[in-house]
Amino acid sequence: MFERIDEKRWAAYIEANQPRFLDELYELLRVPSVAAQKRGITEAAALVKRRLIQLGAEVRVFSMNGGSPIICATIGNGDRRLLVYDHYDVQPEDPLDLWVSEPFEPTIRDGKLYARGVADNKGNLMLRLQTVEAWLATQGDLPISLVFLIEGEEEVSSHSLPTFCRTHADLIKADGCLWETGYINIDEYPVITCGAKGIQNVELVAHGARIDQHSSIATIVPNPAWRLTWALASLKGPDERILIPGHYDAVRPPSAADMAALERIPANDDILLADLGISSFLLDVSGWERLRRHLFEPTCTICGLTSGYSGEGFKTVLPNTARAKLDFRLVPDMRPSTVLQNLRQHLSDEGFGDIEVIDLGGEYPSRSDIESPIAQAMVAAAEATYHRPAVLYPTMAGSGPMYVVGEERGIPIASGAGCGYYGMQIHAPNEHIRLKDYWLAMDWMARFIAAFGA
Amino acid sequence: MFERIDEKRWAAYIEANQPRFLDELYELLRVPSVAAQKRGITEAAALVKRRLIQLGAEVRVFSMNGGSPIICATIGNGDRRLLVYDHYDVQPEDPLDLWVSEPFEPTIRDGKLYARGVADNKGNLMLRLQTVEAWLATQGDLPISLVFLIEGEEEVSSHSLPTFCRTHADLIKADGCLWETGYINIDEYPVITCGAKGIQNVELVAHGARIDQHSSIATIVPNPAWRLTWALASLKGPDERILIPGHYDAVRPPSAADMAALERIPANDDILLADLGISSFLLDVSGWERLRRHLFEPTCTICGLTSGYSGEGFKTVLPNTARAKLDFRLVPDMRPSTVLQNLRQHLSDEGFGDIEVIDLGGEYPSRSDIESPIAQAMVAAAEATYHRPAVLYPTMAGSGPMYVVGEERGIPIASGAGCGYYGMQIHAPNEHIRLKDYWLAMDWMARFIAAFGA
Repeated sequence: MFERIDEKRWAAYIEANQPRFLDELYELLRVPSVAAQKRGITEAAALVKRRLIQLGAEVRVFSMNGGSPIICATIGNGDRRLLVYDHYDVQPEDPLDLWVSEPFEPTIRDGKLYARGVADNKGNLMLRLQTVEAWLATQGDLPISLVFLIEGEEEVSSHSLPTFCRTHADLIKADGCLWETGYINIDEYPVITCGAKGIQNVELVAHGARIDQHSSIATIVPNPAWRLTWALASLKGPDERILIPGHYDAVRPPSAADMAALERIPANDDILLADLGISSFLLDVSGWERLRRHLFEPTCTICGLTSGYSGEGFKTVLPNTARAKLDFRLVPDMRPSTVLQNLRQHLSDEGFGDIEVIDLGGEYPSRSDIESPIAQAMVAAAEATYHRPAVLYPTMAGSGPMYVVGEERGIPIASGAGCGYYGMQIHAPNEHIRLKDYWLAMDWMARFIAAFGA
Repeated sequence: MFERIDEKRWAAYIEANQPRFLDELYELLRVPSVAAQKRGITEAAALVKRRLIQLGAEVRVFSMNGGSPIICATIGNGDRRLLVYDHYDVQPEDPLDLWVSEPFEPTIRDGKLYARGVADNKGNLMLRLQTVEAWLATQGDLPISLVFLIEGEEEVSSHSLPTFCRTHADLIKADGCLWETGYINIDEYPVITCGAKGIQNVELVAHGARIDQHSSIATIVPNPAWRLTWALASLKGPDERILIPGHYDAVRPPSAADMAALERIPANDDILLADLGISSFLLDVSGWERLRRHLFEPTCTICGLTSGYSGEGFKTVLPNTARAKLDFRLVPDMRPSTVLQNLRQHLSDEGFGDIEVIDLGGEYPSRSDIESPIAQAMVAAAEATYHRPAVLYPTMAGSGPMYVVGEERGIPIASGAGCGYYGMQIHAPNEHIRLKDYWLAMDWMARFIAAFGA
């Protein structure tokens, strides 16, 4: 399957161009393209566009009416058509004081490259473009047709993408879609996933007096921080069961194929526990039960709490507002709008109708066939690159706009050919990749192009 | 009682010196003496010392071994000895974005003077010194002996004061103590209080994984924001009853004298509700029941909540820490250390032994006789100044280190002779006083000196 690749020319080209490849990545990492705060979006989109033009691709940039621009680029003339989905936006960098080096100044320490977005997803985005460049320079024509679909709102629920995919169905039509993620797991096996959880993001806001008050008046003035606490406690208790009526109604139990795939995944608890710095998993799950719970259960997570005084020392204040940011991760066949509606109803029924519920966007869960040609090509390419079995996940625990490409457009999906590893700290301070994984991921990507085009 | 005051000379002197008096106040207000953050403390103490020396007082400044300096100053030779307690520290100024003008740049708008600390307690501190100056310039010798006791840790539970008062008992010995506060209530009556609630400040900290995680792993990794939410919900429910076993054991019910005093206090709900911007009081209390609850019930208040992402938009993060700042206001005969001990026991019993409890200081509740000579002198001075009845509160709902002066040293206490009013927004953004109240409070203070010395 990989006889087409001239390994010697390939390796020589990569080696000769490593410094420039890193410079190109650094340039992208230096742009603080935080979608949640609408920072650096235009600049990052322009940079990605420029890099695609350099590659010789035909590039179109779509303004999305208030959203981040979506970039579509085509290159290659092979029969099989591959859609590559990546994003140029990143998560907010705070808490800033926990970063060892500046989040938007890429820094190498101990063979690791630190920067916000390097693992999610600017590293994969850049190495996939560079792989195409290296292929063209060393192997001749591409054996496939490539369509890059690159957005800038992945970290804020991809508001613009669903409509875009519906209205540009012909442009993104493909025989398979390479998803953004790709990484090496905690046992150093390459990971491939064929699904994603859905999500519903909300903010709950409790309101009190007109302004903050001296806390002595807490005897008689409602405290929004208490209202919020009680409302949150009504959503989930220490047994982790979500208490919103109807929340589990649409949950589809894992299929026999799901469970078979699950049992082929190594479940090394101890390494993961040590890495997380905890003594046991939630509810004391372990092994495959831990994996089952991780992949096939919905969640309700407090991602942020804010009220009153958070500074040093003490302030005897009665806050006038309290806010909680929550995400609900969804499994098939849950729907974000139903979750939101049930949440509102529940709060109202429990006497918390005073609490404002702000919809911060949602995405459907998605599942693709783990036997599809793209999944099989990705497994073959991974095993040829890493010389060990690939681990195939029926779904990831994370979310993304997979449904609008997968279920809606009927395109089989697989992740892989990425530079991440289990310790990459995505969405957290000191996000990083191991540099060696970057170059291996380029090999993986090249072999995947060969395999998918074979 | 007030025949000693030459009103004409007095009024002329005040009028002639108003600009300078304001300048002196502005100078003090410009010092950001935030005790919680140890900012501007030395500078504020030096400024107060200088002003006392200008007055002709004998001034001693005591370094408090890591705490803020305590200033003691004596002036006058009258028989009756009056202790005046004030403080030069202020609350933190955040949230900064809600201030109309800079918190540490005094600004007049519509006859109101805005600045952090102007109402609590720098205005009263300065006007009381200026009253003594004006008295000496217009009336001759003081009819009393005055001892100013001025500290810089009132907003952080007066850590150093108790020991100071014990070890300098002779220095602060007095026939009565004028407390820091003094204000006009919502019905424009002057208010005098003879007690304070106690307080226990704590921070609860829940810990999770080693670092923040991507929220997709919330399936299997404990979330400290949930742990904190459940722990908080175990402390108090929507019926406002504090659920910590033993919490109410030491509560002394209001006495017949307390209730009689309470019934003489006007209880105008509607003006207060409108000012607070709420439609009803907590638990729908009203009138004297609202007053009773306000003055005689302990509280458990969330003053701050912090966890995970609090910025714009959304971040799908699983926080590794969650913090709540709580204050417990205490009524006689509750003790801060017992409250703290019961809290720790309760959390442990309820399965929240993983939650760290940080002691951020406490103060005893205190009560003084509302019939004492100082209280009576203050009432007479208030009624002569405002030409309407004074309102005598058996206690304020706020706290302060009153116990170490009152119960421990046996000195009767009354508040009054201050420039506050119901709308002063202490501890909140846009703290301010009405300028007219500042000049009236000087008259009140002068009449109080006359009455107490008579």
